[in-house]
Amino acid sequence: MLTPPWHVETVGAVAGFLTTVAFLPQAVQTWRSKSVRDISLTSYICLVCGVGLWLVYGLLIHSWPIIIANGAGLLLQGSILAMKVRYGRASATE
Amino acid sequence: MLTPPWHVETVGAVAGFLTTVAFLPQAVQTWRSKSVRDISLTSYICLVCGVGLWLVYGLLIHSWPIIIANGAGLLLQGSILAMKVRYGRASATE
Repeated sequence: MLTPPWHVETVGAVAGFLTTVAFLPQAVQTWRSKSVRDISLTSYICLVCGVGLWLVYGLLIHSWPIIIANGAGLLLQGSILAMKVRYGRASATE
Repeated sequence: MLTPPWHVETVGAVAGFLTTVAFLPQAVQTWRSKSVRDISLTSYICLVCGVGLWLVYGLLIHSWPIIIANGAGLLLQGSILAMKVRYGRASATE
C-alpha cells in the first residue's frame, strides 16, 4: 500500500486533531458547571472503551499518530466519564 | 506497509464500531429529553467538522471502513449538533 500524497495525509491529520481536541470544551464546561444530567453515561463508556482499543491498535501497528491522538482522547473522554459518574451521583443524592 | 494480522485488524474494527455507535445513546437521550444545557456546542462543532474530514480522507484513500464509520458518525453527531442548536435556542427564549 503506497503512502498517500501529503495533502491527503494533511486532511487525515487535521481530522484526527479535531476529533481529539473536540472533547476539551466539553471537559472544561463539565468541570466548571459540575452539571452532567444531559450527558449520556452509556455514550462515554463506549467512547472510552473504543478509544482505549484504538490506542491498543496504534501500539500494535506502531503508529504514532494513532497512539498520540487516542492517548489524548482517552485522557479527555476518561475525565468526562469520571465527572459524569462523580457529579451524576452527587446530584442523585441531593 | 504489510497488512496487519487478522487479530490486530479485529481490534481496530471493534474500536471503530465502539467510537461510532457510542453517539447513539447520546442522540436517543437528547431526542427524548430535549435537554441540551450540559452538552458543549463547541465540542460538537469540532466533532462534526473532524468526522466530515475523516469521511473525505476515507474517500481519498478509498477505505470503506473509514467511509462507513465516519459516514455513520457524521449522521449521529450531526443530529446531536442539530438538536443542541434547536433545543438550546428554544430553552434560551423561554
